Amino acid sequence: MSEAALTLEGWYALHDFRSLDWTAWTAADDEERAVALDELNAFIEEWSGVEEAKLGSSAWYSIVGQKADFVMIFLRESLEELNKLEVAFNKTAFAPFTTKAYSYVSIVELSNYNPSGESGEDPMQNPHIAARLKPILPQSRHICFYPMNKKRELADNWYMLDMAKRKELMYSHGLIGRGYAGKVKQIITGSVGFDDWEWGVTLFAEDALQFKKLVYEMRFDEVSARYGEFGSFYVGNLLTFESFEEMLKV
Amino acid sequence: MSEAALTLEGWYALHDFRSLDWTAWTAADDEERAVALDELNAFIEEWSGVEEAKLGSSAWYSIVGQKADFVMIFLRESLEELNKLEVAFNKTAFAPFTTKAYSYVSIVELSNYNPSGESGEDPMQNPHIAARLKPILPQSRHICFYPMNKKRELADNWYMLDMAKRKELMYSHGLIGRGYAGKVKQIITGSVGFDDWEWGVTLFAEDALQFKKLVYEMRFDEVSARYGEFGSFYVGNLLTFESFEEMLKV
Amino acid sequence: MSEAALTLEGWYALHDFRSLDWTAWTAADDEERAVALDELNAFIEEWSGVEEAKLGSSAWYSIVGQKADFVMIFLRESLEELNKLEVAFNKTAFAPFTTKAYSYVSIVELSNYNPSGESGEDPMQNPHIAARLKPILPQSRHICFYPMNKKRELADNWYMLDMAKRKELMYSHGLIGRGYAGKVKQIITGSVGFDDWEWGVTLFAEDALQFKKLVYEMRFDEVSARYGEFGSFYVGNLLTFESFEEMLKV
Amino acid sequence: MSEAALTLEGWYALHDFRSLDWTAWTAADDEERAVALDELNAFIEEWSGVEEAKLGSSAWYSIVGQKADFVMIFLRESLEELNKLEVAFNKTAFAPFTTKAYSYVSIVELSNYNPSGESGEDPMQNPHIAARLKPILPQSRHICFYPMNKKRELADNWYMLDMAKRKELMYSHGLIGRGYAGKVKQIITGSVGFDDWEWGVTLFAEDALQFKKLVYEMRFDEVSARYGEFGSFYVGNLLTFESFEEMLKV
Amino acid sequence: MSEAALTLEGWYALHDFRSLDWTAWTAADDEERAVALDELNAFIEEWSGVEEAKLGSSAWYSIVGQKADFVMIFLRESLEELNKLEVAFNKTAFAPFTTKAYSYVSIVELSNYNPSGESGEDPMQNPHIAARLKPILPQSRHICFYPMNKKRELADNWYMLDMAKRKELMYSHGLIGRGYAGKVKQIITGSVGFDDWEWGVTLFAEDALQFKKLVYEMRFDEVSARYGEFGSFYVGNLLTFESFEEMLKV
Repeated sequence: MSEAALTLEGWYALHDFRSLDWTAWTAADDEERAVALDELNAFIEEWSGVEEAKLGSSAWYSIVGQKADFVMIFLRESLEELNKLEVAFNKTAFAPFTTKAYSYVSIVELSNYNPSGESGEDPMQNPHIAARLKPILPQSRHICFYPMNKKRELADNWYMLDMAKRKELMYSHGLIGRGYAGKVKQIITGSVGFDDWEWGVTLFAEDALQFKKLVYEMRFDEVSARYGEFGSFYVGNLLTFESFEEMLKV
Repeated sequence: MSEAALTLEGWYALHDFRSLDWTAWTAADDEERAVALDELNAFIEEWSGVEEAKLGSSAWYSIVGQKADFVMIFLRESLEELNKLEVAFNKTAFAPFTTKAYSYVSIVELSNYNPSGESGEDPMQNPHIAARLKPILPQSRHICFYPMNKKRELADNWYMLDMAKRKELMYSHGLIGRGYAGKVKQIITGSVGFDDWEWGVTLFAEDALQFKKLVYEMRFDEVSARYGEFGSFYVGNLLTFESFEEMLKV
Repeated sequence: MSEAALTLEGWYALHDFRSLDWTAWTAADDEERAVALDELNAFIEEWSGVEEAKLGSSAWYSIVGQKADFVMIFLRESLEELNKLEVAFNKTAFAPFTTKAYSYVSIVELSNYNPSGESGEDPMQNPHIAARLKPILPQSRHICFYPMNKKRELADNWYMLDMAKRKELMYSHGLIGRGYAGKVKQIITGSVGFDDWEWGVTLFAEDALQFKKLVYEMRFDEVSARYGEFGSFYVGNLLTFESFEEMLKV
Repeated sequence: MSEAALTLEGWYALHDFRSLDWTAWTAADDEERAVALDELNAFIEEWSGVEEAKLGSSAWYSIVGQKADFVMIFLRESLEELNKLEVAFNKTAFAPFTTKAYSYVSIVELSNYNPSGESGEDPMQNPHIAARLKPILPQSRHICFYPMNKKRELADNWYMLDMAKRKELMYSHGLIGRGYAGKVKQIITGSVGFDDWEWGVTLFAEDALQFKKLVYEMRFDEVSARYGEFGSFYVGNLLTFESFEEMLKV
Repeated sequence: MSEAALTLEGWYALHDFRSLDWTAWTAADDEERAVALDELNAFIEEWSGVEEAKLGSSAWYSIVGQKADFVMIFLRESLEELNKLEVAFNKTAFAPFTTKAYSYVSIVELSNYNPSGESGEDPMQNPHIAARLKPILPQSRHICFYPMNKKRELADNWYMLDMAKRKELMYSHGLIGRGYAGKVKQIITGSVGFDDWEWGVTLFAEDALQFKKLVYEMRFDEVSARYGEFGSFYVGNLLTFESFEEMLKV
């Protein structure tokens, strides 16, 4: 059986990081700002209907530091729907007050090292698995996102390990994650063939310090220590339309 | 016989990725937008004549995420024709609403590991091979593009392997691809001497998930695992002039 | 006991590097410049109240060279407070005369190689440790900042060393630092899970040459020589509102 | 005798890649465009006088893809003359319609592995060598440019090989190049101490496919396979003032 | 004795590379250009007073190619003085016609491998050493600047070599440099703790070809071959106010 056969995929994901053009925003007049926020609000209000219809989920967090000012995360049934969301945002009167910062295209996945994927039953009929593949994005106080690869560097080549070795390594790796149950919720999205890294990791927590503790502890685990390659880390805080409006009050 | 002697080349290829300047587009008036779209449409309408005359093929897909908004792919007889297409696009009234995102210059090729290339006959007289070297670009629901190299890193040096070893490795690599027959159509373009990577891979599928499954499965194959280096991945959806016009309706 | 368990964390940190748009500044009229500096002054004056209330600390230094013109460093109780400071700065009339240069998100930490972290007592009850986790940023003549990683490269993989070996290496590394006591004050902030490097190092000194001597001497120590990876270095001079106003006098 | 002693150098070289600002160009009026093209033409017309006086040579090619729109190559007696050419171009009314894309500073060289450099005679008195050091740039249909290094990576370190080994490797490398005699003309320029790579390779051919065949065949040769590091590749088509004017007709 | 103890440091150094905004310059009117050049001239005229007072030295060279148009090099007693020079330049009416290109912050140093540093005497009392630590920057026809590191890559780790081995390697490295006495003058500035590379190398010569010969010959020496990492190379020509004014004449 092929290596890839056991991976399960759910909703497509777009992480859309944007920066605010504060100079344009403070230079705009009250009327322009009001229209911009109204159209942004209308854009955001559509998210809850999608979530209620179980056709996707959305999240909105600020980002701390200069890399971006906020991220919108969209989980949807298809790449076309993700594209439509980008376009819809760009047509709002708010979009010209933003600039692109970073984006990530991926798909929610459950790893093929997950033992539940190996039984005879159809895993999509398992409601627990289905819920993880089409998750409702948490409204936690904090978010952390980073993309990653498994390394292929001479003696440290994940993809040259046999399945049994990888399964063993992933099992002990998973144990660390489980030690943070209740503290950190994690959504893994696969991006092989979709974006520049192999996976995106999105973490949610009430206490941002748990992101550091989890990622640091994992770094000593062989899976990360020898085989992990990490992209940029983005960390931020939950946004609501009200808190965003407050933040933008000039 | 030289290493390169058996490679067959067909049409030159230009992958032209562009972003939309949404701020300029929404700030334009209806008249300006109408003229821009008319000139874009006229530019696109010339593609079908070229294809009917068997002088090339063209494709147009949106790109999901911030890397680009769309890609135009041109296959033509010469570099001069590719250059003329760039110039013609830049002269349209639509071009000022776009910015450069990425481009790739290459040529359709059939690998020298392909056994059919080794018989005594002139492979260009083989209509099957000719069709693969001068292909009609598929109008699939989805596209995936990425450039790649074969690695030259100490013990993992593809170019220091002998031909027999490379042929053996490419054979099992090819078997994976064949497992996706009917699901993913692949066009390989060579870019040694033309652009920054050695090959461009353009995949077409009705189900975008097949891109992920194919590329992920191949990553465990020694050719990719030890010898593959990958650039940025671009994924998107088929565009027609009507769907593009709809997308740009403000 | 987990690898990460002994690390102690204090205040969250934002290093916010900005460049001046001198062309806009010299093109502005006296009135605009006066308003901009007034609002900047009001922004800065709030820092001392926070420090007196022991809710954080702030620092402000110029940066020499083109990478940035100044850095503001904020230590605060939460990521939300850091975010609010960014927003508050961006709303001042001074912000449009600046551009983003670089930023770093981290948290003050004491390393788990610090023996005082291993006793039975609650280290946060130790006033010496508490003071190091929630430090008042020095007003030294000079500052130096750089981010760094511990390497994970084949045979030189810090995270594959056992705890005893790392403790031994860090001990001799620490001895070098102690040789600069009274000359260089150092604040280590951890950024695993928060930003693109694993640590940020912020050094303060009356004599900038001591930065060079310290970092150079450490580079021969095995911890840096084999395991250190370094990002960009920023060096600069203490700013006061008065010296900054003088600097901006056109 | 030192390693470097046998290298022969001729004219200094500047490869000046520029992009067109099509939006500005199409927005300009006929009068502005006419003046711009007149001044560009005057700039170009001076090239032939320099070539006739044997004081240098110049070439002008379009570049396919988004990296640049055209390249001007200047061979001259000194760095000061190259600088003057940059300045003269920047003063034309055409320059504001262009943006910088890439540049390369180097000097025409004949390698110290060339046996003719080892005889007792003064090689500059050899008219064949003098012609190669101060070459007239070909007016071929196509151009290819790329910069390169010899690798210094652990076991694959060109600069740690002894002269005899390097000479042997370069000899077989040169045989491949000679197999393309009449198809590809090559000018090697050295840039150690002048620019970011060690050499620039400029190839000229009537059939662009020969660039791919030559570079690909060489990649299997040990000199490239183990020791070559390559920068960006630029490929394009011959320009004349007439074809350029035609290209810019709006 | 510590590794760093024997290094001697002199003046702080700022290499300030700038590009010209030719479009703005040619668009300005004669009056604006005259004022800009007057203020630039006043800025430059202060340099000779500083040099006469032995408080620093300054140099001004054009740069060939697109990386920058000119570099100003300042040697001064402190980082504050370097900062003031940046600010003073930015306040001139000439500065808005320039853009940042690159900068380097470092300090003139004499290496701890220099035997004269090991005697019992105070080296700063040695007028020869003092003159090298506080040098008058040459007014040569040409300049070359590049930053560099000593490598720390697995088996090729300079900082894991013992002092005796490094001294031996540096001795033979220095012999090459001495072979260029009278042809190339070299100023080494250390930037550990100050900027992104460990050293900056600034070379001066009447014949620019000597830069290439020197750097190329050194590349075969083990210090460079195995342990050298090099940044961007900048090469250019001496500027005087008169030649610069001539260059900017529109």
